[in-house]
Amino acid sequence: MSDLFAKHADRLEAALEACRVRGAWTPFVESPSRRLHPEGAHEAGRAAFEARLGRSFDLDLPGSRGRLGHEISPWTAAPLGIDYPAVDPDALLGAMQAALPAWADTSPRERVGVCLEILDRLAGQVFENAYATMHTAGQGFMMAFAGSGANSLDRGLEGIAYAWRALSDVPEGAVFERSFGKGPVRLEKRYRAVPRGIAAVVTCASYPAWNALPALFANLATGNPVVVKPHPTCILPMAMVVATAREVLVEAGHPADLVTLAADTVEAPVTQALLDHPAIAIVDFTGSQAFGAWIELHCRHKRVYTETSGCNAVVLESVDALEPVLDAIATSFCLFSAQMCTSAQNVFVPPRVRTAHGPVDREDVSAALAARIDALTDDPAHAAALCATVQSPRTVEQVHALALGVDVVRAPVPYSAPGFPHARTLTPLLARAKGTDTVYRREHFGPVGFAIEALDAGRALARACEDAREHGSIASYVYSTDPAFRARAEQAFWRAGASVGFNLVRQSPINFTAAYSDFHVTGLNPAGNACLTDLAFVADRFRIVQSKTEV
Amino acid sequence: MSDLFAKHADRLEAALEACRVRGAWTPFVESPSRRLHPEGAHEAGRAAFEARLGRSFDLDLPGSRGRLGHEISPWTAAPLGIDYPAVDPDALLGAMQAALPAWADTSPRERVGVCLEILDRLAGQVFENAYATMHTAGQGFMMAFAGSGANSLDRGLEGIAYAWRALSDVPEGAVFERSFGKGPVRLEKRYRAVPRGIAAVVTCASYPAWNALPALFANLATGNPVVVKPHPTCILPMAMVVATAREVLVEAGHPADLVTLAADTVEAPVTQALLDHPAIAIVDFTGSQAFGAWIELHCRHKRVYTETSGCNAVVLESVDALEPVLDAIATSFCLFSAQMCTSAQNVFVPPRVRTAHGPVDREDVSAALAARIDALTDDPAHAAALCATVQSPRTVEQVHALALGVDVVRAPVPYSAPGFPHARTLTPLLARAKGTDTVYRREHFGPVGFAIEALDAGRALARACEDAREHGSIASYVYSTDPAFRARAEQAFWRAGASVGFNLVRQSPINFTAAYSDFHVTGLNPAGNACLTDLAFVADRFRIVQSKTEV
Repeated sequence: MSDLFAKHADRLEAALEACRVRGAWTPFVESPSRRLHPEGAHEAGRAAFEARLGRSFDLDLPGSRGRLGHEISPWTAAPLGIDYPAVDPDALLGAMQAALPAWADTSPRERVGVCLEILDRLAGQVFENAYATMHTAGQGFMMAFAGSGANSLDRGLEGIAYAWRALSDVPEGAVFERSFGKGPVRLEKRYRAVPRGIAAVVTCASYPAWNALPALFANLATGNPVVVKPHPTCILPMAMVVATAREVLVEAGHPADLVTLAADTVEAPVTQALLDHPAIAIVDFTGSQAFGAWIELHCRHKRVYTETSGCNAVVLESVDALEPVLDAIATSFCLFSAQMCTSAQNVFVPPRVRTAHGPVDREDVSAALAARIDALTDDPAHAAALCATVQSPRTVEQVHALALGVDVVRAPVPYSAPGFPHARTLTPLLARAKGTDTVYRREHFGPVGFAIEALDAGRALARACEDAREHGSIASYVYSTDPAFRARAEQAFWRAGASVGFNLVRQSPINFTAAYSDFHVTGLNPAGNACLTDLAFVADRFRIVQSKTEV
Repeated sequence: MSDLFAKHADRLEAALEACRVRGAWTPFVESPSRRLHPEGAHEAGRAAFEARLGRSFDLDLPGSRGRLGHEISPWTAAPLGIDYPAVDPDALLGAMQAALPAWADTSPRERVGVCLEILDRLAGQVFENAYATMHTAGQGFMMAFAGSGANSLDRGLEGIAYAWRALSDVPEGAVFERSFGKGPVRLEKRYRAVPRGIAAVVTCASYPAWNALPALFANLATGNPVVVKPHPTCILPMAMVVATAREVLVEAGHPADLVTLAADTVEAPVTQALLDHPAIAIVDFTGSQAFGAWIELHCRHKRVYTETSGCNAVVLESVDALEPVLDAIATSFCLFSAQMCTSAQNVFVPPRVRTAHGPVDREDVSAALAARIDALTDDPAHAAALCATVQSPRTVEQVHALALGVDVVRAPVPYSAPGFPHARTLTPLLARAKGTDTVYRREHFGPVGFAIEALDAGRALARACEDAREHGSIASYVYSTDPAFRARAEQAFWRAGASVGFNLVRQSPINFTAAYSDFHVTGLNPAGNACLTDLAFVADRFRIVQSKTEV
C-alpha cells in the first residue's frame, strides 16, 4: 500500500495553514474553463454522467434487497432512470460494525491519508459531478461545477484538516516518572483516539456535497464508518461519492463497507428508522428546522450535528449608491432560486434609505428591487444561469400559495430556460410586509423575498436580530456607510448568536461562504448546532482511551 | 488593572507543554511539609478554617433570601455551624445574565489571566482548604491537602490550558482577497468566540475540587459565568472557591456575579430546578449515574458534561510476587474508604493465579487479600491516615445492608480514629461472588470489594470489559506478567471504551490519576460523557460568530 498521507501531505499542510490564517485559498479549480482542465475532461465527464442514465448504479452493498430510485431532473422533467440498492438497515449496519474495529485500530495518519486520496479522486470527477448535481439538485452548470465541486471539496478538505488537528492533539504515548510513597515510578502510557461508532450523514436535496463532504471526512478520519442517507430526490451525487470512497478504501486495503449508502424513496422514507438504530452513534444532518429539531429531541444519546435554516435578514441603513446594493440583494433572491441556506429573505427598509445622492423613499426602494429582479430574469439565458431550477415541485406550490396571502410587489413567474423546455423554473416573489407581521419570521424555502417596513434602521436591526435568535439565521446582511451603526449591528447580531456581512456588493454572490475563512452556522440560534468548521465539529467525534503500564 | 495573563504566562506555557508531552509535572506543592511552605502557613490555614466555624459565610449574592447550611464533620460528628446565603434562582441568574455580555466581550487573554490569578490565589489557601475538605468531605488531612489541593489545582490549570488552546485556535480576524465575477474583492473578517451562557457546576460530596476546578475554569475562560451548586453536605470548600473567584474578579474590574454559589439542603434540594432553568446553558455534573442519566435526559437542550461512576475491575492473571499486588488492591479498597471514582471494586480471580513462586489458589488469594486489609487497618493511626472517614451515614448503612446479603470474606467494621472518637469510619467489606452473580455489576459506593470467581483469566477479562461497557468504568486494573495477555487486555478494554492500568504497584495508590498525563473518563461507557481533559471538554463551551466587511 502506498503512503497516501505522504502523497498528499503538502496539500494537508497548506489546508492547515489556510485554516489558521483564514484567508482565500483553494487547491481546486473553480472554473470549468477548458484551458484549466485536461483536454476532453468536460466531454468525458458529461459522457460518464450520461452513461449512468437508465441503468443500475453499480454499488455492491451488504443487506441489498431489491432496487429503488425515482430521481427526476428538474431541468428536463425526465426520470434519470437510475436505480440503487435498497438495503436492510440491520444487515448494512452489521457489516459496518464488522468493519469498524480494524478501522479504529488504523492509525490517524493512515485514515487521513485515505480521506485525502478519496478527496483527490473526487476532484477528478468534477465534470461528471456537475452534471449529476444539475440533474438532481437542479443547480445551474456553473454552480454545480464550482459550488458543488471545488467549494465543496474545500469544505471536505477543511474537515479533514480539522480532524487531523484534533487527532494530532493526542500523543501516541508518554513516559510518566515521579516518586510516590514507595519511591520512584516509571509508567509507560499509551493513548488512543477511539471512534464513537457508525455515523449517519443525512444530506439535503439542493446542495448535498457542501455539507456532506466535511461530515463524511470528519467522521471517517476520526475512525467512524459512514452511512450516507441522501435525499430520495438527490441520490446520484452522493452515490458517486460513496462509490469513489469505497473504491479507494479497497485499493488501500480497507473494507469497502466503511462507507455505505442508504437510499430511500419519498414514499417509503428510512431516515427516522435509520437514525433510531442503536448502531448509529453520530448523526450529521442538513435539512429542515423541523426535522433537525426532531433529531435533536429523539437522538439524544447520539452525538448530533445539524445545519438547518434561518430567515436571513438584510438591514438597509445607508449606502453610497443604491443600485449595486439592490443588485446584490436581487441576485441573492434569484441565485439558484434562493434554495441556499445563505440566501437573503427579509429586507428591512426604513422610511428613507440614505444614499450619497440623497434619501430614497421606501416605496422607491421596493420598486427598484422588484425592477432589478425583473432585469436579472428578463433574458432567459441569464435567468437560466442565475436562477437555475426549483428542485422540488412542492417549493413551487408553496411559493404560489404564499403569493395568494401576501401584499405582492413582484409576482413569482416562471422563465423559459433555453434548451430545457420542461425545466421547473420560478423567478422570485417579492412581497411587502409590515414589521409587525409574522409571515416573514420563518424560512420560506425557495425564491421568496420580503420588503419589510421598518420604523427606522435601529428597529430594523432589533427585529432582524430577534428573528435570528428565535427563528434562526445562517447569514445576515447589513448595508451601512456609518461605522458606528456597523459596530452596533455587529454587536447586536453577535449577541443574537448570528454572523453578519457588511456592505457586500462586489463579493458576488453575497451568499458565498468560503471554506478556511468563513465559519458557517454558529450553533447559537435555531439554524443548527454545528459549525463548518471549528474544533468542536471534530473534537467530540472520537474519545480517548489510554493504558498505563508500570515498568 | 495589572496584566494578569503576563503575570502567569510562564505557568500557562509550562502547562500547555505538559498537556502536550503528558509526563509528570506540577507547579504546586503536594506535600504539607513545613520546609516547603512559608513559616506558619499550616497554622494560619487551620486558624482560618476554625475562624469560619459557627459563623455566617461572607458571600454577598444577588437574590439572597435567608440562610442555610447543615454541614456536619465526618471526623467530629459536630455541625460546622456555618450558614450560607439561600438564593432565589431567578434573581441570581438574572444578575449573572446581566454580567454576561461584558465578560463575553472581554478578550480571551484577559479572561484566562483572571482564571490564572484565581487559581494562584486558591493555591495560597491549600491549608485552609485541606481542613475545610477534611471536615466536609471527610478526607484525611494528607489527601485533603494533596488530592484536593495541588492535584485539583493541577486539573484546574489543565482546564485553563485547554481552554486557551481552543480559544487560540480562533484568530481575531483575517483579510480575504480574491476575485469574483465583478473583479477583486477585499473583505475584512472578524471572529469572536461567544460563550454559550451560564454554566451550572454541580459538585459532589466526597471529592469536589478535583472536578469542580476544571469545569469552573473551562467555563469562565471561555466566557461563561458559573453558578456552583455544591452538595448540601459539602459546601464549604466550594464556597471558599467562589468567594476567592469573586474577589479576584472584582479586583480585576469585572463583576463578582460571574461566579456564584447556589447552596441548598438535603431536605430542600434545588439542583433539578436550577438545571431546568432556561438561563442555564451548560451543565457540569459530578455524582451518581442515576442523576447523571436524569440530567442527560432532561437537559437535552443544554450542553451537558458528566462524570459519574463505574464498577471498576481488577483482573488478576499472573504476577511476579502476589503480596505487593494484594497490598495495592487492599490499599485501593481502604483509601478514603473507597469513595473515589477510581477505587477498585471487582477483583476477578481465576482458580489459580500464577506467580514466580508457583500458582496460588483462588481461596488463598481471597484470604490473603482480606488479611492484607486487616493489616492495613489494624493500627488505628494507620487506618485513620488511609481510610479516613465515610462521608455519608447512608453509605455506612448501605455497606452493612449489602453485607447481610453476600458471602462475606471480611466483614466491614469501624476503626477508632485517634483523636476523633466520633468519626464515622468503616473498614472494607470483602465479599465473595460467583461470576454469574449480578450484585457486583454496579457501583457500590464506599468500602466494598468483591473477590469474583472467574473460570479463567480470559473469561475474567471478558466479564470485566462487558461490565465496563454496560455499567461503566472509570479505572480498570490488570495484573499480568504475560505481554500477550496485556496486549489482549488493552485491546479488550479499549473496545469496551475503558482505560486500563497494568501492574500498578509502586504507583501508590493505584487510584492516582495525574493531570496533564491521564485522560480521566472516556465518555464511551456509562461512567460519564466528559473527559478531564481533552479538546472536546472545552471546544464546544463557546461558539464562533463572525463579521465580514467589504472594503
